[in-house]
Amino acid sequence: MTDLLLHEVGPRDGLQMERSVVPTDVKESWIRRLMTAGVDIVQVGSFVHPEKVPQMADTDELFRRLVTQKDRTVTLSGLVLNEKGLERGLACGVEMFCMGASASETHSRKNTGMSTDEALRRIIGAARQALAAGVKVQVSVQSAFGCGFEGPIAESRVLDMVGEYLAAGLANISLADTAGHAHPAQVERLYAAVRRLDAAVQCTCHFHNTYGLGMANIFAALRAGATSVETSFAGLGGCPFTKVAAGNVATEDFVHALQRDGLRMDVNLERLIGIARDVAAHFGRDMQGFVHKTGPIPSGGTP
Amino acid sequence: MTDLLLHEVGPRDGLQMERSVVPTDVKESWIRRLMTAGVDIVQVGSFVHPEKVPQMADTDELFRRLVTQKDRTVTLSGLVLNEKGLERGLACGVEMFCMGASASETHSRKNTGMSTDEALRRIIGAARQALAAGVKVQVSVQSAFGCGFEGPIAESRVLDMVGEYLAAGLANISLADTAGHAHPAQVERLYAAVRRLDAAVQCTCHFHNTYGLGMANIFAALRAGATSVETSFAGLGGCPFTKVAAGNVATEDFVHALQRDGLRMDVNLERLIGIARDVAAHFGRDMQGFVHKTGPIPSGGTP
Repeated sequence: MTDLLLHEVGPRDGLQMERSVVPTDVKESWIRRLMTAGVDIVQVGSFVHPEKVPQMADTDELFRRLVTQKDRTVTLSGLVLNEKGLERGLACGVEMFCMGASASETHSRKNTGMSTDEALRRIIGAARQALAAGVKVQVSVQSAFGCGFEGPIAESRVLDMVGEYLAAGLANISLADTAGHAHPAQVERLYAAVRRLDAAVQCTCHFHNTYGLGMANIFAALRAGATSVETSFAGLGGCPFTKVAAGNVATEDFVHALQRDGLRMDVNLERLIGIARDVAAHFGRDMQGFVHKTGPIPSGGTP
Repeated sequence: MTDLLLHEVGPRDGLQMERSVVPTDVKESWIRRLMTAGVDIVQVGSFVHPEKVPQMADTDELFRRLVTQKDRTVTLSGLVLNEKGLERGLACGVEMFCMGASASETHSRKNTGMSTDEALRRIIGAARQALAAGVKVQVSVQSAFGCGFEGPIAESRVLDMVGEYLAAGLANISLADTAGHAHPAQVERLYAAVRRLDAAVQCTCHFHNTYGLGMANIFAALRAGATSVETSFAGLGGCPFTKVAAGNVATEDFVHALQRDGLRMDVNLERLIGIARDVAAHFGRDMQGFVHKTGPIPSGGTP
């Protein structure tokens, strides 16, 4: 767990769910602070059609403002859903593309208008194009642990999709629990199976906290070899195209937990808490995260 | 995990924290429904001084009403803090005594007016008296994972206390995360160490969700051999004598998670959800639990 990567997805997965559009300047200020907090990757936005998700309409503009910042190790990622998004992302300086296809046919059709097979084929094409352009790529299997429309998703289905990614030379793979259906034993089983396909695979996890299992699932994924974790400031988030979805694990809660164990002490937890508090104040409602409300455990350290 | 015991502590640990006193008839109706929901133990109340915690003043009366119920496998437990509480509990038919001492000197003194050593000596005496009277006993180490006043608690301190319990013939032992400081790696380490002291020990876990780690800690404890889990309806709870405390893991959330894995399918989840909804409606505010709000995952089962 010492090489664990922290991927903050709040500016994308958090803000895309909000009714109100956050002004670009406000987003920029939050992201600039995230960029100095010690997380490894910040997901700036999504290259979705601006009319479909107006909350993400300024993604290109945000990248143009942010990528010029020097003296940093943090990577700026962007979500793309199709070739058009890839074009936009390449044009504005995206440093890591996140893209994926859903293991659920129904979710895939509702989200993209395509079957899973077609979406997978097109995503693999776009991902290889991005790699060829010299940009990092992470590919995902959405609804990997169950689907709000279809219910259970066969693990073999998920592993087949992972196998296709690996065969295409895409070895940075995320399993996303879009509907929040995952439970720890399932998570551990599936990540272990992915690593059996290829021990060198970079495994990312993305859990929604719909049924209260987000944090438990992260720890199960880490146990089975996940190397990167996606979380959201203050616990904001969800997916607009699933039936029920409620929140991600809060970044500051997860970092707080890691630091209780002496891990990722390089991250500036106070800064993350400050950002989460400002995000909560901006929306003016109770957020799902804990530590931005309680503050960190005062004594620090572990027994 | 198939022999996992479910101990519902909402009527005690949940209600003791509420400003308003729940009428005895309402408590009785909730507990009677819990008694038919498939959980193994229900904690009816606490034998604390009625002026100190008026929410628990009707504990004796509740036991008198409930213990006469025939045809049940569920055990009715009660928390006692001292010899006086034990007397009261023996007189009204408690079927399982829960008692404990804090590993934190400061917490012990604030909670009981005694040092840890004195509290431990007196609890062991009371526990042996209860056993001699033919009643089940569970003894606990409170603040086992850290203290809101003192900060870190040495693991050796906790293990010494467990060793004293074991030496006194008390083999049903709970580690309580009173302040919510535990993290999964610590939990797994400590439960494993307890089981190394005595592999036959019955280990219970009790985690507060103050920093968002309650559910993750439960799964860590189960992995290390915990055999009983204390949770609270709707996620109500905390400890009135610690500085910061917020909620337990919700019983229905935990059972929902177990049943996603095919475990404890004997428990009536719908009934637990109904109780949690009524508890939430009674207090009229948003509760920490998830599943009583979302409902269970519709499809059931696992991939």
